[in-house]
Amino acid sequence: MSTQPITATLFPGDGIGPEISEAVKAIFKAAGAPIVWDEQHLGKTVDERTNSFVTRENLDSVLKHRIGLKGPMTTPIGKGFRSLNLTLRKELQLYANVRPCFSLPGYKTKYDNVNLITIRENTEGEYSGLEHEVVKGVVESLKVITRGASTRVAEYAFQYARDNKRSRVSALHKANIMKKADGLFIECCREVAERYPDIQYDEEIVDNACMTLVSDPSKFDVLVMPNLYGDIVSDLCAGLIGGLGLTPSANVGANGLALMEAVHGTAPDIAGKNLANPTALLFSGVMMLRHLGLHDIAEDIHKAALAVIAEGKYRTGDLGGTATCSDYTKAIIDKLQGRG
Amino acid sequence: MSTQPITATLFPGDGIGPEISEAVKAIFKAAGAPIVWDEQHLGKTVDERTNSFVTRENLDSVLKHRIGLKGPMTTPIGKGFRSLNLTLRKELQLYANVRPCFSLPGYKTKYDNVNLITIRENTEGEYSGLEHEVVKGVVESLKVITRGASTRVAEYAFQYARDNKRSRVSALHKANIMKKADGLFIECCREVAERYPDIQYDEEIVDNACMTLVSDPSKFDVLVMPNLYGDIVSDLCAGLIGGLGLTPSANVGANGLALMEAVHGTAPDIAGKNLANPTALLFSGVMMLRHLGLHDIAEDIHKAALAVIAEGKYRTGDLGGTATCSDYTKAIIDKLQGRG
Ligand SMILES: CC(C)[C@H](C(=O)O)[C@@H](O)C(=O)O
Ligand SMILES: CC(C)[C@H](C(=O)O)[C@@H](O)C(=O)O
Repeated sequence: MSTQPITATLFPGDGIGPEISEAVKAIFKAAGAPIVWDEQHLGKTVDERTNSFVTRENLDSVLKHRIGLKGPMTTPIGKGFRSLNLTLRKELQLYANVRPCFSLPGYKTKYDNVNLITIRENTEGEYSGLEHEVVKGVVESLKVITRGASTRVAEYAFQYARDNKRSRVSALHKANIMKKADGLFIECCREVAERYPDIQYDEEIVDNACMTLVSDPSKFDVLVMPNLYGDIVSDLCAGLIGGLGLTPSANVGANGLALMEAVHGTAPDIAGKNLANPTALLFSGVMMLRHLGLHDIAEDIHKAALAVIAEGKYRTGDLGGTATCSDYTKAIIDKLQGRG
Repeated sequence: MSTQPITATLFPGDGIGPEISEAVKAIFKAAGAPIVWDEQHLGKTVDERTNSFVTRENLDSVLKHRIGLKGPMTTPIGKGFRSLNLTLRKELQLYANVRPCFSLPGYKTKYDNVNLITIRENTEGEYSGLEHEVVKGVVESLKVITRGASTRVAEYAFQYARDNKRSRVSALHKANIMKKADGLFIECCREVAERYPDIQYDEEIVDNACMTLVSDPSKFDVLVMPNLYGDIVSDLCAGLIGGLGLTPSANVGANGLALMEAVHGTAPDIAGKNLANPTALLFSGVMMLRHLGLHDIAEDIHKAALAVIAEGKYRTGDLGGTATCSDYTKAIIDKLQGRG
């Protein structure tokens, strides 16, 4: 099997980022993934264009390769810096944030058979960054909802459902309160829903949806929603299956531009100690491979990691095990090479 | 024991509201609660002053008695009406919404020993009602955070913690994104925290808090947060213990003015069929009795209801039982009168 090598941007990130990135690189190599990494590191000073440590070169790398993988990043504390994660999402117009959340076979939590896809509008809403102090002690923060961004994320969600043979899309909203803003969001979802008669569509108020998710997550399938609700709901969903160490994500933009991302933190307490769990970044890498159409290699890696987790012998500390990051990585590689 | 009768406003509400209100009245009577109810019904037309079906007389009743109990209400569909629940909260300046959430002994869910208090800012934030379409297809919705409202709800939370012998208050926020708005909210919480050195204080980002809540709710104690997060988080918490049919709430304003409220819906599908679960409204009534200093009667009612639920013989359909609302009510009354 010979495939043309594909260059992908890699942001190893901070804290545990470099070690989990090494793990992913090693596993990709062992699986024969034809990926050449263009490793990108953030600047050490604020780049004027992005008002953050994200540099022009960083952005250009993703724009050139149109595909990337990103470890966790810490935004330095200080007023006026934009979050690094957000800068990437906004500058690259990565408009849909896809966060699948599945129960891992053999890894027990309170919930069985979770199988949810959160699709989050990723460029506007409560993340507009537009805020000001009107008079002393009175702050206004603008939530911005547009027809354009709402329609494209709704389209993404329905197309995702169709492509992935899922039967239902639910729009989460709070249009009983934010009648105009969330009202516009669901109006766009409804319009798109009409063009996807093969996919069921319903709407649920976000607070109620969160209650349902913790009582019986099987009541949902694909979820689409404005930015902040997506932020909250995707973390809630991750909690159902064992946390952000296990859940991948993809940030998708126009014409297939995509940056896959582990959304957990940089875990400074365990950084550099070979204790981190690379699963979220690895599964983000698997999403990347699928996005590139490399389904077989994606499947191989996914299955190997699931098998290692299911067997339980090499689990990292966050999953209650004692394996190091390298133990776990090696176990996956052994599995891939038929030795595990 | 002779206590002066106290008049309290009662909004039976819509749907299942009247039948669960009857249940609460009967139980209060059996327990010897010295409450005289001033029953209030909403108007049939929009009241100009409140731009909703809430009338001047409705508001005056609560303002006069300074205490009330409210069943679920449906806001009629149609543009421009304000939500009835919100109208009451805003017009009466009920600034703190207190939602305790406890596991019910003997009623099994995925979670044991949940014991959480959500205190929600109840007058501003994402519920400002200020929204407009800037140009076609672009809507702005204003989140308003003020020093005044943030400080008073923080004070309420810390004082609540102290009065109820709880050791910790956590402020939930998204100040990494809404740096100014949520930044002001936590700034106020920090200032208040300094005046309560006996209460631990910490801060957690709301998405992360939701993940923690579903993984291990015992990590939190009293939670204080802006309006929308409180809406979402309190529903999530209710989901952990069995749903909104079981969780009471209190809306508290200046100088002890308080309106207790069952926050579940009107359940039109089962309305009038004697199938509804009156527990949320009953426990809201218990909060009302405690608020009035009637601790013994509050305890009696609370214990009787808990005992009936624990025994499991008379549970309503939402709890997997087959009891009618009246069966359950009678069982509680029997328990109160030493016959159960
Ligand atoms: C780190 C933070 C800016 C980010 C967000 O709020 O989107 C994170 O919570 C996420 O979900 O990716
Ligand atoms: C009915 C609705 C307006 C209300 C709210 O959003 O506050 C409800 O969800 C609640 O939590 O009391």
